[in-house]
Amino acid sequence: MTRKLRVGILGATGMVGQRFIQLLENHPEFEITALAASDRSQGKIFSDACTWRLAGEIPTFAKKMTVAAPEPPLDCELIFSSLPGDIARASEGAFARAGFPVISNSSAFRMDPDVPLLIPEVNHEHLGLLDTQRAKRSGEGGYIVTNPNCSTIMLALALAPLHHKFGVTGVVATTMQALSGAGYPGVASLAISDNVLPFIEGEEEKIEQETLKILGEFKSSGIEAAPMKVSAQCHRVAVSDGHLAAVRVKLARTVGLEELKDAFTSFTALPQELGLHSAPKHPIIVREEPDRPQPRLDRDAGNGMSITIGRVQPDNVLDYRFVALSHNTIRGAAGAAILNAELLVATGKLT
Amino acid sequence: MTRKLRVGILGATGMVGQRFIQLLENHPEFEITALAASDRSQGKIFSDACTWRLAGEIPTFAKKMTVAAPEPPLDCELIFSSLPGDIARASEGAFARAGFPVISNSSAFRMDPDVPLLIPEVNHEHLGLLDTQRAKRSGEGGYIVTNPNCSTIMLALALAPLHHKFGVTGVVATTMQALSGAGYPGVASLAISDNVLPFIEGEEEKIEQETLKILGEFKSSGIEAAPMKVSAQCHRVAVSDGHLAAVRVKLARTVGLEELKDAFTSFTALPQELGLHSAPKHPIIVREEPDRPQPRLDRDAGNGMSITIGRVQPDNVLDYRFVALSHNTIRGAAGAAILNAELLVATGKLT
Amino acid sequence: MTRKLRVGILGATGMVGQRFIQLLENHPEFEITALAASDRSQGKIFSDACTWRLAGEIPTFAKKMTVAAPEPPLDCELIFSSLPGDIARASEGAFARAGFPVISNSSAFRMDPDVPLLIPEVNHEHLGLLDTQRAKRSGEGGYIVTNPNCSTIMLALALAPLHHKFGVTGVVATTMQALSGAGYPGVASLAISDNVLPFIEGEEEKIEQETLKILGEFKSSGIEAAPMKVSAQCHRVAVSDGHLAAVRVKLARTVGLEELKDAFTSFTALPQELGLHSAPKHPIIVREEPDRPQPRLDRDAGNGMSITIGRVQPDNVLDYRFVALSHNTIRGAAGAAILNAELLVATGKLT
Amino acid sequence: MTRKLRVGILGATGMVGQRFIQLLENHPEFEITALAASDRSQGKIFSDACTWRLAGEIPTFAKKMTVAAPEPPLDCELIFSSLPGDIARASEGAFARAGFPVISNSSAFRMDPDVPLLIPEVNHEHLGLLDTQRAKRSGEGGYIVTNPNCSTIMLALALAPLHHKFGVTGVVATTMQALSGAGYPGVASLAISDNVLPFIEGEEEKIEQETLKILGEFKSSGIEAAPMKVSAQCHRVAVSDGHLAAVRVKLARTVGLEELKDAFTSFTALPQELGLHSAPKHPIIVREEPDRPQPRLDRDAGNGMSITIGRVQPDNVLDYRFVALSHNTIRGAAGAAILNAELLVATGKLT
Repeated sequence: MTRKLRVGILGATGMVGQRFIQLLENHPEFEITALAASDRSQGKIFSDACTWRLAGEIPTFAKKMTVAAPEPPLDCELIFSSLPGDIARASEGAFARAGFPVISNSSAFRMDPDVPLLIPEVNHEHLGLLDTQRAKRSGEGGYIVTNPNCSTIMLALALAPLHHKFGVTGVVATTMQALSGAGYPGVASLAISDNVLPFIEGEEEKIEQETLKILGEFKSSGIEAAPMKVSAQCHRVAVSDGHLAAVRVKLARTVGLEELKDAFTSFTALPQELGLHSAPKHPIIVREEPDRPQPRLDRDAGNGMSITIGRVQPDNVLDYRFVALSHNTIRGAAGAAILNAELLVATGKLT
Repeated sequence: MTRKLRVGILGATGMVGQRFIQLLENHPEFEITALAASDRSQGKIFSDACTWRLAGEIPTFAKKMTVAAPEPPLDCELIFSSLPGDIARASEGAFARAGFPVISNSSAFRMDPDVPLLIPEVNHEHLGLLDTQRAKRSGEGGYIVTNPNCSTIMLALALAPLHHKFGVTGVVATTMQALSGAGYPGVASLAISDNVLPFIEGEEEKIEQETLKILGEFKSSGIEAAPMKVSAQCHRVAVSDGHLAAVRVKLARTVGLEELKDAFTSFTALPQELGLHSAPKHPIIVREEPDRPQPRLDRDAGNGMSITIGRVQPDNVLDYRFVALSHNTIRGAAGAAILNAELLVATGKLT
Repeated sequence: MTRKLRVGILGATGMVGQRFIQLLENHPEFEITALAASDRSQGKIFSDACTWRLAGEIPTFAKKMTVAAPEPPLDCELIFSSLPGDIARASEGAFARAGFPVISNSSAFRMDPDVPLLIPEVNHEHLGLLDTQRAKRSGEGGYIVTNPNCSTIMLALALAPLHHKFGVTGVVATTMQALSGAGYPGVASLAISDNVLPFIEGEEEKIEQETLKILGEFKSSGIEAAPMKVSAQCHRVAVSDGHLAAVRVKLARTVGLEELKDAFTSFTALPQELGLHSAPKHPIIVREEPDRPQPRLDRDAGNGMSITIGRVQPDNVLDYRFVALSHNTIRGAAGAAILNAELLVATGKLT
Repeated sequence: MTRKLRVGILGATGMVGQRFIQLLENHPEFEITALAASDRSQGKIFSDACTWRLAGEIPTFAKKMTVAAPEPPLDCELIFSSLPGDIARASEGAFARAGFPVISNSSAFRMDPDVPLLIPEVNHEHLGLLDTQRAKRSGEGGYIVTNPNCSTIMLALALAPLHHKFGVTGVVATTMQALSGAGYPGVASLAISDNVLPFIEGEEEKIEQETLKILGEFKSSGIEAAPMKVSAQCHRVAVSDGHLAAVRVKLARTVGLEELKDAFTSFTALPQELGLHSAPKHPIIVREEPDRPQPRLDRDAGNGMSITIGRVQPDNVLDYRFVALSHNTIRGAAGAAILNAELLVATGKLT
């Protein structure tokens, strides 16, 4: 690949937008040529518009770029979006209609029947929806591909090898989610100090619905939801990055513990075969220590793109239980969208 | 009641020991006349032996008391024990053999077939085991009554009205437990900073086993375990006091949401009828706000003796789900033992 | 005192406003008859308008009160205000002009030459300014009395006995301030997680200026600033309540260590003599343990109205050093204003 | 340099020991050939002996190494030590007597008159003490070089350019120190939760004494302490890594603000000239944002070897004030010792 694709970031000043900029700084296939945001930062140069909240400095290339409004056209060939849900639908839709491929981390279009809710290791064949989508929505080559909610990505990635090999019929997931998932300023420090919050608006519903679509089957008529039941209870805890989930699963057939672990450990998929730049060598890492995974120690595994699973054990009520962890703003957001775009490039859908 | 019973505290310098001292400072039925500990503090006066870790000061009466070894005899009529598990068995056993009633918060004897694992609101009839126990173990009036593990008390108290009214057949509990549950020094600050620990040694097993005994039926042959399945996954979070649990339940019959909530709200039992000093007016408080219970806001409800339940909803996999919270060193430890003792007094088993 | 004074709270939904309501719930001299706020809550009943962020429940009396706009008239005889600085000046000024005594925790009027910046234990004679103020500002009995910034109250209270007995010529204070000082939502959790913030806007200037006024002398021409130099560096730390300050002082004469400690310990003043309801028995508590004061252990001393001082030692650069702590929303805000009002009642300025 | 020096780590299983192993993994001049520890880990392989507490995994090379006792001989040419103070004196002394150069992070020998207390950017000429030390202590080539306490390194590095250019006569430092400074398990989570601890044993004394030696002059008779007064107040805060200090300085002559900042910004020294591997390009980074430095955002500047200074301002009591930050286990411990060793290599004292 000789020429880099020119990309624009919608929501560039937010937590996920900053991750996009950080992760794309030296990307071999993409270079950022436009930044846009929905807030008061429009018209300012990025270093004035954005309080950088990640470690280190704003990448040099971004400092002097002017922040535009999230409206087409932008000087780029491809859009990454992490706009807030309420304005994402109008803005992303407008870019798609104007002919831009939109790789979105927002929730706005995820459950639309003709929009792929993509995890490259799990359901790349869902990209078949793009034909329908283009036919229906736009005559100019634009389209929308979304990635799931940060917790759902982790859960669906953990379930994928189990569902594929054994069939999953029931899932009970209890999450302990990091602060960065709420954006900035997000959760007030007084709210979470010496505390846990048992509520994240809309999160339980997203996990319960998106999982069925992701693990569903692509049919000519659309995605057929996976025939399983999913229960989610979500909590916010005082952790900066890294979502943890305690998961129980019910399987369609009897499976041995080692067989189950092996399904996790041996799991690789198309992104690994294609050698996509952001694809981790091991999408799922299984740890045997009794006290892992832990957010602080494991969130950066595989450059934040691997999920880590531990405490795999038989369960008294369902069949098995385990604890899963992933970096919520990398594998769970910006990194997810970038991997989606890398897959689109590698499969010829972006050039 | 004119004369107070004279009580001794085993494990007086620990976190739960300090709670015993705090809660008994002005108790109408008990006065502390002996303090014992297993550590280097023996022979010192309490204010030298103990670094007080609760808010406020060491109660004046305790300051000058000399810390004894946890061996009989002690100058008291009744023992409260919060000794570490490894030495509790020998020490508590010795006190019972020497004729002392031992009200224990330790795990040593909880699962012994002839030892009541008591929550006064839930299974006071289990005190019937004391006849067997006395017959078998000691001829002098000593016996052992235990309270459950801190997380189990909360869970069993939440399940009790459901099990009584509807029958509970399956329970899936995921805990987020406070630091004080690990004692002092307990969890290292570096271990929990920006982190969650998905492992508390022995905790999942305790919850899964103790719950069946507590909710079991007293028969002349002993306790018949409740016919239900319990699954527990336990986590340590950066909260000082207050254990939280996300719970799903499967019920033996179809129950409406309001009927379920009403079972919680209307629940009172023998301690409330008897007006026991430490019994909260409402053992279970149900909150309707979407983001409650929270450890910091709800742990002190009912002076730390009520549990708070919220987010009661139908569940996709089991029948219902909810979030429960209780103060782990009050209702979950020292307060539990004191309420046990109050019940023994009120039912004539201590005088 | 037979009849309670009817009081209104401006800024009732904020952190300090909630403290006013909590502290006044059973106050012998005041009863709340009006609640006002500057935000979207106007016209709602308080329980709908306010997310209660203190432990426990909204006091029953307040739940059904309707939140008014912070404009005169309100149905009360006296105003407590904790409005944000930007709107306090207009609102409090309007109430004073309309004849209401305004007891303010806001910064708006603190440095006005004719407004007392009052700590009852320190400078009650500054109330002499009220004559000037009434003459100048209003013909109807209204006036404004302010309390200092939360950190300044602690510092000035600690310095008062030293300045009175020995003369203080230099003060170097470095604060570690609690999250509640920033109100709600205040500091973002992501900003303070695993972090310290070395900046609180305007705080260093307030401490450096207000201290000179508080410790200054009342003259017929106004307050003559105390002849000392004050240096403040302010930091936000991950503590919910309780401001800590590391303080060095330079004294006008040679003083022994015990003499210095005795000045702290023996300090009482007019509020203690008058037996004001909120006056702590010991305004300053000195602790001898090497690791005290600590926010979590000492902030509630004297019901949050005592400050706690520890680590009193000679200093290599100035003369002495110590660490001071106080509850920033009680002694540092709502409790301070209430004590001011109690002094006004006791000295006949409110009836 | 063709051959790497073979080094042994004393205290290899501790927090600083782990940093040594992490930082030396791919070091161009040193390779670890021996690991020793004072605890129960002796005789085990490192991966069994050590619970790795840094992000990522134990470096592969270290996993299978057997942990030895901290006694000579060890299979290496050079010793890095981070032993606890109480055993460091005997152990390090024995290694020096046995002919090993000992580069120590321990406090045991820091204040010995013939032992350099070295910061390569500040006082490399203090290495002149090695002649005396060798003459006095050992005939075989062994010697001891120490680095200062973690807080002192930061302070002395910040003061060095000021003292060199303007003369510093007084220093008032108030620290907010990270948890990792106390090692593992170190501070109990219950002790620091929602809290600040105003006491770190021995820390204030170390800062006040070590600073005078570091900034002192090397004379043939030894180090002449710097003619300045230093005051330190030390606090532990809930931060994992990164010590912060609020500093005021009194200077020997009048200096302008820009001149002062320029002294920080332009500061480079021998390690930068020699291009030592661990030497940061900028030993001191000055930030102009009002809210920097912050531990989480700035501790990794210069790979943890730069200190960051902000909020440089005139002071009311001394002359100037600023806030300084450094990574306490890199620049403040393991990285400091490694830089010391690199200087010894570059100046021919290790080959």
